[in-house]
Amino acid sequence: MIEPAQTPPPPYYAVIFTSTRTPGDNGYGDMAEQVLELARQQPGFLGFESARQEIGISVSYWASLEAIQAWKENAFHRQAQARARDWYAGFRVRVCKVEREYGF
Amino acid sequence: MIEPAQTPPPPYYAVIFTSTRTPGDNGYGDMAEQVLELARQQPGFLGFESARQEIGISVSYWASLEAIQAWKENAFHRQAQARARDWYAGFRVRVCKVEREYGF
Repeated sequence: MIEPAQTPPPPYYAVIFTSTRTPGDNGYGDMAEQVLELARQQPGFLGFESARQEIGISVSYWASLEAIQAWKENAFHRQAQARARDWYAGFRVRVCKVEREYGF
Repeated sequence: MIEPAQTPPPPYYAVIFTSTRTPGDNGYGDMAEQVLELARQQPGFLGFESARQEIGISVSYWASLEAIQAWKENAFHRQAQARARDWYAGFRVRVCKVEREYGF
């Protein structure tokens, strides 16, 4: 179940992952589930949001750039990254500093 | 048609809009289309991405904080903002500085 992330007051960091999929599953569903489960256990992980229609947008929230870097270098995550072209026709990763937040 | 945004080299800004909808359309579809069309015409607008499943995630990209502020204060946009509770059970707006970008 994906719900809006409950994040602390800014500043913190967001990684916006925008993608288009290749045809077929090719093990994507299992991988995505495992990667997310592992991400949730990382130091500095703050939350995760995701939706897909024509394109997929996943946003993970992190306490620091160091936490993002450590997650990027995680061994299991690197194995998944190495298979990116099996699952994605294209993707962009944008690493962002969240400066302001509001809403209800 | 929503496609991955083609943005310039960082730094630039992103506004991550995460929402859950109220039941029914209540004029939402028409409003969303008009607001997006207008956003595309604003100075400093760089791109837009959106997807909705359990939650909706829309990301707009901007050249500067000033461009974001001017868009927030746009008269038609303010009319839409005033009706937020008709359309959204909840939303968060996160204003972010994009520091790094990569992908294929």
